[in-house]
Amino acid sequence: MKKLHLAQALGDVRADLVLKHCSLVNVLSGEIEEDVEIAIVGNEIVGVGQGYEGERVIDVAGRYVYPGLIDAHIHLESTKLTIPEVARMMARFGTAAVITDPHEIGNVAGLDGIVYQMDSAKNNGFIDVLFVAPSCVPTLTDASIETAPSVLGADKLRMVAEHPDVVGLGEMMNAAGVLMGDAQVIEKVRDYRARGLVVDGHAPMIGGKPLNAYIYMGIQSDHESTQLEEAREKLRRGMVVMIREGSSERNLDDLLPLSNGYNTGRLMFASDDLDPTDLQARGHINHLIRRAVAAGVPPMTAIQMATLSPANYFGVSDRMGAIFPGARANIVIALDLERFEPDVVLHEGKVVFRDGRLVDDGVRPSVALRPMMHVSLPADISVKAEGKLARAIELVPGQIVTKEAMFEPKTHDGCIVADASQDIAKVCVFERHRGSGAFGVAFVRGFGMKRGAMGSSVGHDSHNLVVVGMEDEEILKCAAVIRDMQGGQAAVLGDEMARLPLPVAGLMSDDSAENVIAMEKALDAFCAQRLGVTSPRPMAALSFMALPVIPTLRITDQGLFYIAPGGYPKKVGILVNS
Amino acid sequence: MKKLHLAQALGDVRADLVLKHCSLVNVLSGEIEEDVEIAIVGNEIVGVGQGYEGERVIDVAGRYVYPGLIDAHIHLESTKLTIPEVARMMARFGTAAVITDPHEIGNVAGLDGIVYQMDSAKNNGFIDVLFVAPSCVPTLTDASIETAPSVLGADKLRMVAEHPDVVGLGEMMNAAGVLMGDAQVIEKVRDYRARGLVVDGHAPMIGGKPLNAYIYMGIQSDHESTQLEEAREKLRRGMVVMIREGSSERNLDDLLPLSNGYNTGRLMFASDDLDPTDLQARGHINHLIRRAVAAGVPPMTAIQMATLSPANYFGVSDRMGAIFPGARANIVIALDLERFEPDVVLHEGKVVFRDGRLVDDGVRPSVALRPMMHVSLPADISVKAEGKLARAIELVPGQIVTKEAMFEPKTHDGCIVADASQDIAKVCVFERHRGSGAFGVAFVRGFGMKRGAMGSSVGHDSHNLVVVGMEDEEILKCAAVIRDMQGGQAAVLGDEMARLPLPVAGLMSDDSAENVIAMEKALDAFCAQRLGVTSPRPMAALSFMALPVIPTLRITDQGLFYIAPGGYPKKVGILVNS
Repeated sequence: MKKLHLAQALGDVRADLVLKHCSLVNVLSGEIEEDVEIAIVGNEIVGVGQGYEGERVIDVAGRYVYPGLIDAHIHLESTKLTIPEVARMMARFGTAAVITDPHEIGNVAGLDGIVYQMDSAKNNGFIDVLFVAPSCVPTLTDASIETAPSVLGADKLRMVAEHPDVVGLGEMMNAAGVLMGDAQVIEKVRDYRARGLVVDGHAPMIGGKPLNAYIYMGIQSDHESTQLEEAREKLRRGMVVMIREGSSERNLDDLLPLSNGYNTGRLMFASDDLDPTDLQARGHINHLIRRAVAAGVPPMTAIQMATLSPANYFGVSDRMGAIFPGARANIVIALDLERFEPDVVLHEGKVVFRDGRLVDDGVRPSVALRPMMHVSLPADISVKAEGKLARAIELVPGQIVTKEAMFEPKTHDGCIVADASQDIAKVCVFERHRGSGAFGVAFVRGFGMKRGAMGSSVGHDSHNLVVVGMEDEEILKCAAVIRDMQGGQAAVLGDEMARLPLPVAGLMSDDSAENVIAMEKALDAFCAQRLGVTSPRPMAALSFMALPVIPTLRITDQGLFYIAPGGYPKKVGILVNS
Repeated sequence: MKKLHLAQALGDVRADLVLKHCSLVNVLSGEIEEDVEIAIVGNEIVGVGQGYEGERVIDVAGRYVYPGLIDAHIHLESTKLTIPEVARMMARFGTAAVITDPHEIGNVAGLDGIVYQMDSAKNNGFIDVLFVAPSCVPTLTDASIETAPSVLGADKLRMVAEHPDVVGLGEMMNAAGVLMGDAQVIEKVRDYRARGLVVDGHAPMIGGKPLNAYIYMGIQSDHESTQLEEAREKLRRGMVVMIREGSSERNLDDLLPLSNGYNTGRLMFASDDLDPTDLQARGHINHLIRRAVAAGVPPMTAIQMATLSPANYFGVSDRMGAIFPGARANIVIALDLERFEPDVVLHEGKVVFRDGRLVDDGVRPSVALRPMMHVSLPADISVKAEGKLARAIELVPGQIVTKEAMFEPKTHDGCIVADASQDIAKVCVFERHRGSGAFGVAFVRGFGMKRGAMGSSVGHDSHNLVVVGMEDEEILKCAAVIRDMQGGQAAVLGDEMARLPLPVAGLMSDDSAENVIAMEKALDAFCAQRLGVTSPRPMAALSFMALPVIPTLRITDQGLFYIAPGGYPKKVGILVNS
């Protein structure tokens, strides 16, 4: 339990720091308290009120003071940044804590990956990082559909639950398993609930009796609602609703009408997946509050949804989510309650952001993860032509679902080749975790690619190596480039190339946020200008090519699969015999 | 964890009971939901919505349905009823659960007493009883001030914490100990907090820096505020505020203005001490909600303060405080949201109240507690007269503080005797736990007593036997009557007497509520009509005569004590040598 600073709380001994003349946004009493002092010792608030003396004093001069903000659900790997880097980016926006589900690195590196994130987060000095354990690793257990590198059963999840930074079980995507009463799934849920930890849900489009059953079985939250009525039903039935506004999934405007002043404790904000360019451009949770207030939500309500509500839900209100004696001194000072642009941010009693600049000692924890690229590339990825009609995975702009397209293949030396005139490119998935040499080949329509190849070691959820290209040797060269930089994203054309190395599990960079954002932009530009790619965010589209649980056509290291809505993956050939 | 009724939740199998056409007061979404069905299996809600089939159906016909109400803090011993009896009384008012602090029986009988209450509560069939452990037993540890029968140190409190019905540590009355950092006190608080249990506070008139320090040390709630500003400061500084309306302490009207619509989660209702006559006459938590709504609090807010707020605070929102799949089926059906008079009450899926009548199988758990009256009465309680001026404890009408009065003693055979002309009666406290024979004698002014004697084995906090009378033999006879009925309250005049036996630890009756209320009224009438007593609630006044922590004069089995405000008890003589 926390250190004893009783004498300072009593005011008998000077505090380390006192904030004077605060207009305190008191999320506990629901009032703005004028001219308040906040006394801080070490990383804790020890007193709030009047008459405190401090070794140091900050005159807030009547500006607003509110608790550091909390993101209720984010996969930090999606930022492509290590936690110390992303923590620095988020702190400047007044973020004090995130609840992260290390789902991606858990798939790639299992317990090692989760522990890597935990160790990277420790004492990062800018935000608190709390964890929910990834509940569904792997997504599919059938090795004939794809090679999944890691398995996290109830036994391993129990080990994760023992870590002090773990507050729950992450989004239970296996709703079918829950509703069938699958013993493995139920064991995970009950074990976490029995420990007093939360169990987050994942229930897109689920309502009515199945929703009741899903909640009855112990699932407590959802962040997947895209429609107001869908979210309202979840709220009514007992779920905490996380209003999500990420880089691709954007539900804020649709769901804000849920807030009616009587349900603030059941609503919170989440990013889910956020790329670093978006984070830099728009901000973090402060961006969601800003838009909520602009949409007519009272500032007190919006701030409570980003502080007290998640702190209560995740059972950490003893230390965060409000400004009170005993809480960690995670405090934001801002000029207004409209823009939510911090002037000063304190994390655990230290000023980490001030006058538009981060107060950064530059120190990073030295945490290492062994290489996670073990790919053995084939010599030949040609596809024999033995039919008049072939299947192609067809991209759907702005969505992750794909369609099945039929095309008349162009052939060369008895093999099917890519054909720019039909917007047909070749796509390969190379198993990259065990060096098994397994790979799948198919064709894709919709990238608008004219030449060269591009690839990514970020490929949900098993994160094998996905490469799309117009020539076999360019595809293999691109794959080799990504292999040789221990993972990442790259595009090649002859001797030219653009690269974003992601050596941390093939998911994250070890470079600075600024450099990652620059490389990400350069890579997108290279794909557009040199390869002729027309789809706006080709790397995002690439990363979902190999997700065999979402309709309609997907490719894995085991080949091409057809997935009907709600159906199980069925292997299909490239060629349609007719 | 709860039984599996997945098939019923899915609606594949009929539920045991379905409530149809409910106007659901949805405390989760903050809305009234029209025409809703609630499906119940066993003691649980399995579904809420539409299309459920049940073995049995109750057509609610559009009446309001809200979750069973919760009393956030009550000493059930104050009702003088065993838990099965008081549970039946409370259920008819829509109470589903109480959080009780067995402070009185803990003082009298230690762990045995606490376990007795826990066992009595088990499966009572009418309300859920959750416990907070009495934190301050005994009130004073100094045996030269009074004989305290029990000691509950941190070690014993750890044993209590292991019981599944324990949700926290009860009101920490030793604020001085907390603010001095007393190791014993801090150990109790930290141990309970470290277990994730709550720690309730008791901070009358404490504000400013001491309040900050008290909260900093881990105290989370208060129910002792009598002034609005006092309560507002506690709310702002981080305490959950329990608005108390008991039999003697009534703060509802003063504190209701705290509610501003942004702090509902931090406010709840409590009774603290409630005598059975009041409970029958006014109702329970429904009475507080009724008055809150009459005072202008929105019904949704008032109901949330009595359901969701305490369920969240005490960490039991997984099973109570709202109507959702997985919650216990504790449900109230009422015609309006003004009177809050239940038409039907369900507890754990069973109808326990309907059409104005309790559905009572009459079964009581057979739980016994060994006798707790071990009193050895003296032969002589006379007071030698050796001075011109004597001290008397002077009652202050409507308050528990006393004053010091001086009077010129009337003597007889060289001893000071009671003197009706000066409203002076003799008061004795007989040690009643160990048969030590220890007793104290003094004089009291303010009862208006003319003849006879009256006494009580309820005497806060050590509950020794207190008797007030005009003649020594009447006093000793009254004490013997109370001893012979194994505790209780009695009044005697010659051969006449009125009695309320309280054989359970000398605090509670084993009789029905109806009989206890009748005896209580008869006893008060006897004191007024036969003994000439003028103070309105003499037994309540009696029960505080021996509380040596409240100013100014008090009597214990060790004699007469002077207590200055905030001071330590100082032994004084009856006679003032002048």
